[in-house]
Amino acid sequence: MTSNREIHLASRPEGWPTEDTFRLVETDVPTPGPGQIVVRNQFMSVDPYMRGRMNDVKSYVPPYALDAPLDGAAIGEVVASESADLAVGDTVLHGLGWREYALLDASSARRVDPTLAPASAYLSVLGMPGLTAYAGLLEVAAMKPGETVFVSAAAGSVGSLVGQIAKLKGAGRVIGSAGSAAKVERLRALGFDAAFDYHDGPVRDSLRAAAPDGVDVYFDNVGGDHLEAAISAMNLHGRAAICGMIAQYNDTEPPAAPRNLSLVIGKRLTLRGFLVNDHNHLRKAFVNDVAGWLREGTLSYDETVVDGIENAPAAFLGLLRGENLGKMLVRV
Amino acid sequence: MTSNREIHLASRPEGWPTEDTFRLVETDVPTPGPGQIVVRNQFMSVDPYMRGRMNDVKSYVPPYALDAPLDGAAIGEVVASESADLAVGDTVLHGLGWREYALLDASSARRVDPTLAPASAYLSVLGMPGLTAYAGLLEVAAMKPGETVFVSAAAGSVGSLVGQIAKLKGAGRVIGSAGSAAKVERLRALGFDAAFDYHDGPVRDSLRAAAPDGVDVYFDNVGGDHLEAAISAMNLHGRAAICGMIAQYNDTEPPAAPRNLSLVIGKRLTLRGFLVNDHNHLRKAFVNDVAGWLREGTLSYDETVVDGIENAPAAFLGLLRGENLGKMLVRV
Repeated sequence: MTSNREIHLASRPEGWPTEDTFRLVETDVPTPGPGQIVVRNQFMSVDPYMRGRMNDVKSYVPPYALDAPLDGAAIGEVVASESADLAVGDTVLHGLGWREYALLDASSARRVDPTLAPASAYLSVLGMPGLTAYAGLLEVAAMKPGETVFVSAAAGSVGSLVGQIAKLKGAGRVIGSAGSAAKVERLRALGFDAAFDYHDGPVRDSLRAAAPDGVDVYFDNVGGDHLEAAISAMNLHGRAAICGMIAQYNDTEPPAAPRNLSLVIGKRLTLRGFLVNDHNHLRKAFVNDVAGWLREGTLSYDETVVDGIENAPAAFLGLLRGENLGKMLVRV
Repeated sequence: MTSNREIHLASRPEGWPTEDTFRLVETDVPTPGPGQIVVRNQFMSVDPYMRGRMNDVKSYVPPYALDAPLDGAAIGEVVASESADLAVGDTVLHGLGWREYALLDASSARRVDPTLAPASAYLSVLGMPGLTAYAGLLEVAAMKPGETVFVSAAAGSVGSLVGQIAKLKGAGRVIGSAGSAAKVERLRALGFDAAFDYHDGPVRDSLRAAAPDGVDVYFDNVGGDHLEAAISAMNLHGRAAICGMIAQYNDTEPPAAPRNLSLVIGKRLTLRGFLVNDHNHLRKAFVNDVAGWLREGTLSYDETVVDGIENAPAAFLGLLRGENLGKMLVRV
């Protein structure tokens, strides 16, 4: 029997993680017990929220344990089954990424149809990033047709979908920020009305130039200077859906922004944090909409794929540095 | 004819205003033109928002002009009328405080019944501070029975009503912070379940001790360390109604708090700024509720009254220093 390789948390990072944060460990391929399956993973997801789980702090998900495998969304093929619900050959979505072979209860896996969409799409446009974009924009921020939408980290897996969904749902103007000229160019190709590289000057100035009539909805993936700039640019009764603050995930000191928070009073702004788990009631509408847009060819999604479980730490570090265009995935 | 005295803005304050910010000016008592009235003011309101209007910046209300009278809510008796709508002897509420005699269009004044409540109550419990408390708590923060409510500046005109209305509407636990031992004692007498003096230690520690099971609703009058402490203490799906940030109105540098804003994501918090003007649709329910509670004797309100228009600047400065218990008023 071949062996299994998995990535363990070797140490808790202070500030930025490094290759020393991780350890590649070789184990035996597991054998399923009653009700269990073994999945040969094909793709696994690396996501910004995983950085928070490397700290030993209480949060909305438990921290990763030291000297144990990391986990996260993955998709693969059932290669052994002791469950009547799933058969060898089924493609399933589950939560045990960061390893080649995953042993889990059949009830923790969800079968998907690999003929409807490529397996990787279930980790991006049809998966958690897609629903995050959809719910954050349409439910949390309650975007209305004609409004101006600003999204940060707009070339990322969530951001690129936020901008496109906004246009498809009738936004008047969509603006994205990203971290390179190539990403900015990609945003324009995706139909963003304006896009800027946040390295090109203060975000506040770039945003004002891109949104001369102000911003109604801000979808925040970044925090920090982006949130501060958005608060300054927002119109009366503007709404911010706070999805992530990647700018500060590696900070060792508490961040100081936004210093203009008192503007929420006069402008009657709403800042609302959210997690996609609270919005599963939207899943049916989301799948209907997204499947339709994919069929019509009106929605695009980008993937950056890194090969080999041994390169998963590098993929994660690259994600934190913004090296991905669209969804960052590891082909296991 | 006697003369009129009014307070002008003599200079725009940098940081804290002083007596030099103001100038007492003597003028003739005005004469009404067609459709106008002259009101002899009895009480005028001093409010924290007036500090913002002393700066020459665009905001939700225009800045005060230099070398012209300040304005703000006032109540008084019509002493001359060229309008068929209002008669000499009527008691009216209007927006031209900071002067003994006000000249205004009759359409800008609202007649009130001085036999229903003392004139001053129309500037406090039955007026803008009352509706602010009612709308912020029940509509903006959408408090539900059984929840834990925290309010800052709780001995002020708005805060003391927030806490009492919360209890009357079924809050499980109500906590207030204030700036002196006497105020804390007063909050306990008003029925707050817990109260603390924010000088007694870090707000975060005091709040955790007072709310061991966390906070569901935070009514913010202060900003700064209070908002940061509230974000830390808030439970999942908590809501903050952001009404004021008096802690920073006199700051000349942008404030640095709250450094823990990223907690809004995992806890799915909503921070919502509001102005009372947007909530006039609640006025009927508000007056019904408050009049009922006043009749029953279940709602108390405090007033701190300073005598004489010449002492209005001192009253305003005292308000910024927190010297008031309940509503700060000037008997003109």
